[in-house]
Amino acid sequence: MSMRILIVNDDGILAPGIRVLEKAARALSKDVWIVAPETEQSAASHSLTLHEPLRIRRISARRYAVDGTPTDCVYLAFNKILADCKPDLVLSGVNRGSNIGEDVTYSGTIAAAMEATLLGAPAIAFSQDYTDAARVKWATSAKWVPKVVRESLKAGWPEGVLLNVNFPDIAPSAVRGLRVGKQGRHEAADMFEERVDPRGRTYYWVGMADRGNERGAAGTDLRALHEGYVAITPLHLDLTHRSSVTALRKSLG
Amino acid sequence: MSMRILIVNDDGILAPGIRVLEKAARALSKDVWIVAPETEQSAASHSLTLHEPLRIRRISARRYAVDGTPTDCVYLAFNKILADCKPDLVLSGVNRGSNIGEDVTYSGTIAAAMEATLLGAPAIAFSQDYTDAARVKWATSAKWVPKVVRESLKAGWPEGVLLNVNFPDIAPSAVRGLRVGKQGRHEAADMFEERVDPRGRTYYWVGMADRGNERGAAGTDLRALHEGYVAITPLHLDLTHRSSVTALRKSLG
Repeated sequence: MSMRILIVNDDGILAPGIRVLEKAARALSKDVWIVAPETEQSAASHSLTLHEPLRIRRISARRYAVDGTPTDCVYLAFNKILADCKPDLVLSGVNRGSNIGEDVTYSGTIAAAMEATLLGAPAIAFSQDYTDAARVKWATSAKWVPKVVRESLKAGWPEGVLLNVNFPDIAPSAVRGLRVGKQGRHEAADMFEERVDPRGRTYYWVGMADRGNERGAAGTDLRALHEGYVAITPLHLDLTHRSSVTALRKSLG
Repeated sequence: MSMRILIVNDDGILAPGIRVLEKAARALSKDVWIVAPETEQSAASHSLTLHEPLRIRRISARRYAVDGTPTDCVYLAFNKILADCKPDLVLSGVNRGSNIGEDVTYSGTIAAAMEATLLGAPAIAFSQDYTDAARVKWATSAKWVPKVVRESLKAGWPEGVLLNVNFPDIAPSAVRGLRVGKQGRHEAADMFEERVDPRGRTYYWVGMADRGNERGAAGTDLRALHEGYVAITPLHLDLTHRSSVTALRKSLG
């Protein structure tokens, strides 16, 4: 029996990154489904659309667009589109831009993999780092996605855990290999701009900081990317800070 | 010098839960600020509005509404409204409905506390459990918020950690006290409905499951609420699954 693969993303059904995953998935299985947002959802995080109706648009046999978030896509894929036979593997991305450090709490690409994890399927989130927006190195993702999927499936990972994979902003052949690490922390803060609209009213644009090539701490996703590796970080959804549970139990009960 | 307290929420500037926090905060300090979304943002998760302009509306001296998400509110409070003197404490909520188990990955109330944590301020997220939507027991929150804030500040908690506090759906006097626990897991899945619009097109409503009174595993936030305690869960933003880092390093490098 063929492995059923669901592909989802954050940048929308027309984004180049989704085609990279599609090609890699088709080399693994004939049963590949795509359910992705109609439009770009960046920084949609783990949003579920509760206050508005959602519509599913069937594009072709196994390709659907949803007018919602990446989380909505996974939710409707599991509960409606593929309700009779759930996916064996969920691939999210490839996101345009890295998702490392605390980015993982904002990222729609990772949120989709989180939702799949909550629904009981193994999931991998992929992101392609870039500095020059006009020259995102999709060839690097394209070369390395198949290897990551193949080797990760062979190695296996526990239920309730998802893999967060980031490709460095270098040529495919310059990549030094895979490196497993932990979630790091960005050095630079986000930024915003104050502007005035044509009617004289003030407004604000929030923007992710242009972080350049951060070095990060040893053993982190940031460091792996910085040193030219594919960064693989196993994430789980239990946010409990264990040592504080012990400490606070003593003082609060 | 008075402690500067920032209050934010997910249910919007007019929600009853924000008044509960405001009253408790004013008993602690004269320097209380409110920056909250114009409208309800439930399940907005840790979204940052990147593709649209944001506007800040000044309602009174220390009260502002933002036409964005809870995360946007915290971001603009720290970087614009209170840029000269950042808050010493951020209180988020009180959310209408509990945020326990995997809810914490979706919740806008917790996302606001996460953003404050990323920006370096101690933060507490508050939620009031309910079953009857017409009779949310705000009196329970009102009675217990001051005690939680006072005792938590006395006990202290590490940088990078936030407190997630949930009040049980029982009368104020029936609450058995505070209990520190870990993040649990819901038993029931979310649900959705398929409907047809007046023009004959199919659409979907996603809804959080009506979970009733789940028992949860021992030591979790679910169990604490179930047994009539105020559930306090220390959360952090490092999602790394440590044992998988070790295991995957052996097989993937």
